[in-house]
Amino acid sequence: MEQLSCQYQWREINTLSGETRTRDFLAINSNGKVPVLEIKPGLYLPESNAILFYLADGTPFWPAQKLERARVLRWMFFEQYSHEPFIAVARRINKFLPQDHPQRADLPRLRDCGNQALVIMEQHMKSREFFVGDKYSIANIALFAYTHVAHEGGFNLEPFAAINQWINRIRSQPKFIEMTF
Amino acid sequence: MEQLSCQYQWREINTLSGETRTRDFLAINSNGKVPVLEIKPGLYLPESNAILFYLADGTPFWPAQKLERARVLRWMFFEQYSHEPFIAVARRINKFLPQDHPQRADLPRLRDCGNQALVIMEQHMKSREFFVGDKYSIANIALFAYTHVAHEGGFNLEPFAAINQWINRIRSQPKFIEMTF
Repeated sequence: MEQLSCQYQWREINTLSGETRTRDFLAINSNGKVPVLEIKPGLYLPESNAILFYLADGTPFWPAQKLERARVLRWMFFEQYSHEPFIAVARRINKFLPQDHPQRADLPRLRDCGNQALVIMEQHMKSREFFVGDKYSIANIALFAYTHVAHEGGFNLEPFAAINQWINRIRSQPKFIEMTF
Repeated sequence: MEQLSCQYQWREINTLSGETRTRDFLAINSNGKVPVLEIKPGLYLPESNAILFYLADGTPFWPAQKLERARVLRWMFFEQYSHEPFIAVARRINKFLPQDHPQRADLPRLRDCGNQALVIMEQHMKSREFFVGDKYSIANIALFAYTHVAHEGGFNLEPFAAINQWINRIRSQPKFIEMTF
């Protein structure tokens, strides 16, 4: 939204204290998850990557060609199925849960699976500047989010030279701002 | 593809015997997963839902309006994040793995999470004929796939009246064919 110069209001929802499980929130997103985009009063769109599509459609961040669009979605579905459940979940456990929380027992498995996702990304990015075509798109935004903070989940990004170069490339995009959470 | 009257050739890949982990297959999809669409010789597109988008773009199965498109994607991302990892994975374990396989220990957790996805679908479908708008779309195809065979994963679909009506509605679409695996 910053990069598209959208006007918006950020409403913080605390997922750790149950704010996504209240009756009011479940009426907004029955799946009880953030983020949710309020398009206009009372009109809600859940799912981070569906929101990215909605905001990007009609802008340079959603490509014009059908095959490139499909490839953007390919990486966004990869992000949801093969990346977020390991890298973002490991970060949530490692960064936000107490040291003696039983979910910490999942961390070794999550790190193994997350590293597989990073290996796939590294291999893809060795010969490319962006995930699809030669331009910044929502595929890059979706994958940047938890990749650039993977170290907070206990991942070592140092061996992934192409990923690190890509992270710097994303950071240098016009109107880039850092994630605040 | 049947419903769009596409000509295609189905190539069977055995995921249980390691055929998605060969060097040749990983060159086609570095993530080692089926399905993959071969668009023309040597041009491949992985991720089931990106394939659905590619095939549906320009047809009535991908809506014309931006908000409806975003909502179609919303349900397709729901399918990948909150549905397939539980309902399809429980089916794979229950139907294809030996009775003494250690992964069977995951079944109770997978069934709990899968039932949550079914509850969300049931609630949504109580007042609707299709997942988005009043028309069949790829959101319905994506969600039909493992929902209509959820019983093979040990799920009881009987309490979900709206889901069952929707399953029958999908089966009555022109050129519908049953899944063969």
